[in-house]
Amino acid sequence: MSLVVQKYGGSSVADAEGIKRVAKRIVEAKKKGNQVVAVVSAMGDSTDELIDLAEQVSPIPAGRELDMLLTAGERISMALLAMAIKNLGHEAQSFTGSQAGVITDSVHNKARIIDVTPGRIRTSVDEGNIAIVAGFQGVSQDNKDITTLGRGGSDTTAVALAAALDADVCEIYTDVDGVFTADPRVVKKARKMDWISFEDMLELAASGSKVLLHRCVEYARRYNIPIHVRSSFSGLPGTWVSNERPQQSAQSAQGAEQVEHALISGVAHDVSEAKVTVVGVPDKPGEAASIFRAVADAEINIDMVVQNVSAASTGLTDISFTLPKAEGKKATAALEKIKPSVGYDSLRYDDQIAKISLVGAGMKTNPGVTAQFFEALSDAGVNIELISTSEIRISVVTRADDVKEAVQAVHTSFGLDSDSEEAVVYGGTGR
Amino acid sequence: MSLVVQKYGGSSVADAEGIKRVAKRIVEAKKKGNQVVAVVSAMGDSTDELIDLAEQVSPIPAGRELDMLLTAGERISMALLAMAIKNLGHEAQSFTGSQAGVITDSVHNKARIIDVTPGRIRTSVDEGNIAIVAGFQGVSQDNKDITTLGRGGSDTTAVALAAALDADVCEIYTDVDGVFTADPRVVKKARKMDWISFEDMLELAASGSKVLLHRCVEYARRYNIPIHVRSSFSGLPGTWVSNERPQQSAQSAQGAEQVEHALISGVAHDVSEAKVTVVGVPDKPGEAASIFRAVADAEINIDMVVQNVSAASTGLTDISFTLPKAEGKKATAALEKIKPSVGYDSLRYDDQIAKISLVGAGMKTNPGVTAQFFEALSDAGVNIELISTSEIRISVVTRADDVKEAVQAVHTSFGLDSDSEEAVVYGGTGR
Repeated sequence: MSLVVQKYGGSSVADAEGIKRVAKRIVEAKKKGNQVVAVVSAMGDSTDELIDLAEQVSPIPAGRELDMLLTAGERISMALLAMAIKNLGHEAQSFTGSQAGVITDSVHNKARIIDVTPGRIRTSVDEGNIAIVAGFQGVSQDNKDITTLGRGGSDTTAVALAAALDADVCEIYTDVDGVFTADPRVVKKARKMDWISFEDMLELAASGSKVLLHRCVEYARRYNIPIHVRSSFSGLPGTWVSNERPQQSAQSAQGAEQVEHALISGVAHDVSEAKVTVVGVPDKPGEAASIFRAVADAEINIDMVVQNVSAASTGLTDISFTLPKAEGKKATAALEKIKPSVGYDSLRYDDQIAKISLVGAGMKTNPGVTAQFFEALSDAGVNIELISTSEIRISVVTRADDVKEAVQAVHTSFGLDSDSEEAVVYGGTGR
Repeated sequence: MSLVVQKYGGSSVADAEGIKRVAKRIVEAKKKGNQVVAVVSAMGDSTDELIDLAEQVSPIPAGRELDMLLTAGERISMALLAMAIKNLGHEAQSFTGSQAGVITDSVHNKARIIDVTPGRIRTSVDEGNIAIVAGFQGVSQDNKDITTLGRGGSDTTAVALAAALDADVCEIYTDVDGVFTADPRVVKKARKMDWISFEDMLELAASGSKVLLHRCVEYARRYNIPIHVRSSFSGLPGTWVSNERPQQSAQSAQGAEQVEHALISGVAHDVSEAKVTVVGVPDKPGEAASIFRAVADAEINIDMVVQNVSAASTGLTDISFTLPKAEGKKATAALEKIKPSVGYDSLRYDDQIAKISLVGAGMKTNPGVTAQFFEALSDAGVNIELISTSEIRISVVTRADDVKEAVQAVHTSFGLDSDSEEAVVYGGTGR
């Protein structure tokens, strides 16, 4: 008997109808002879509504209490889901993160899982129940306080439970049919992949693809848990994310052959970043270090970094980096503070940028990829402002206005376009 | 240092404004040098909304899952309340029923408390925090499942915690200023009592007074925890419920002297019951027993019971009893079933009745009370259909249409009317 862990996001359980639809899907998996553990997020926008309430009573809600508040959301969806399954004549039990044995550190609002002890879940499924587990939440090891895992937490709960239960697969249900070669909201002819490696998926996630979060893929790779990303609306086979392409996938869909040996997995884009340029930095040892130390001390994660070649005549150079827009203010404030000691000329802040990334394991052995990437952008009239590369990824920064054209041009240039417009986005506004 | 347990109902925390008002009140108690534990219900109508959602996914929601669902309600209010208190510059921590050590049996939706182990609450208040505890909920001893305590559960949580923590007082905050000599919604000149004994309060609660539920008063009497019923809106001193009238109460309010030696505590009414009459029962041993066995086997609690004197000519008698309207169908079905064996003539079911009760410890030594009660009703033109008495209570059943006149007439007759219309009902639709 296989053990399947499924995860359903908020848009899949946004209302009573959604909950009933998900209940049916879970029961189908059970009827096929699987043991089923379903991880569920809070209903639709309910988490945002709770945050709104919190802000009404306190401008900066305390972390412990915010976690206590937000975890009510999954408690509601999981109990309703268990009821809906029982109403279909199958046994189900819901469990909080704490009851499911999701043990975390004590960092409220973004706790890390440090252990999973799913004894109650194991007992429940062995007794024939479908176990419904609250995503996004755990309990701290030190003081038994309720914690939340932060953004993408429910996916992480699912993968962590799958690892601890030695599950055969972790199915992540979402509002698209799988992982596409580009965001189907932007590229109509984006193609669903049957399979993608953990490594490529990690790069896509780091480059702005939102279908799976980096953290969840990292966890799955560490414990070698195959993820199957698919739609809770259509029920079609989705995309497998794993170490090796599964057997069945090679035989399956039309077009699979074509993708199998492709160099390129896909094109990702990200418009959530801003660019900071420190202009006129004295080109001598230690200056760049002071700048990035100041940013790091403000606890800001930066992404791409580029330093221009120093103009010999002036002895001054420019340093640019990108960072999440939300942290722009904090970063410029930290840099203003060190202006006297570093002695740079000025700061430029630009939040009208987009990052376009091409990801694929094949590119490390194929020097022509980079050239083709730049040519595609150039032919589309898109100007490149920054460049950064890794072994399996090339990223550029462009104007935000150019993002659609840029992604589309690269997608077409690398032969990723589907013959038809197959991509469908089902639910509401994400997960 | 005194330890005060406070309880705030749903109407007191119906929205962000309410939560902020309650937070201020809690902080006031803390500032007076008390250790404070506050038990809180779910916000306003949120429990009803959750029940509504449950019914949308399952016509008969499973008990375990319904408890899991409903306990989300207090989780929300308690976390928000803790945030609001911290926002006022005081330390606060919220605790679920389980975290607070409220251990129950496994009867979902109406669990009984079997133990309270408030170690975390004690530690929290000893460290200087205000502890906020979810009312209405606990955790089952047998299998660590989440349970709810049923109707009036939050009051019971508060009293049980007060007992386990050896608190000095349990303050129950509600939407009226205290316990009145009659329902202030019905009798404008109802007078707030400064004090009432546990015994009289138990009779009032059993007779339809809704300000405190029977179960909570019973618990408080067993552990001798003084209850102070008061308004979260006005902040005025309310009504003490305890074994003995407290010292300060005798000196306090104007009019206290007058109430102190009164025979009568108050007049209660109840329109939630129906009357069943079994007509033409053979007047021989065992017939009444068969009837009440049938009703008991259907797990229906009956209230008043009256058997008329048998008419000598027929050898037949009528038996009437009252019961909650909600159980009327079940009762008549059970009685129809035994009709052949008992051989009664017919059943009458009447849900247009009201029960009026006069409660007071004084009445057991004062034979005139009963007569005066009946005279008052008669003078008001109210017909009496059933009568039942205990040592400290007289109850009659009248037409539901007569309830206002009846309560008012009895209230006036026993000198309970206040000089002014002091009663104010603050919040919404009860708790």
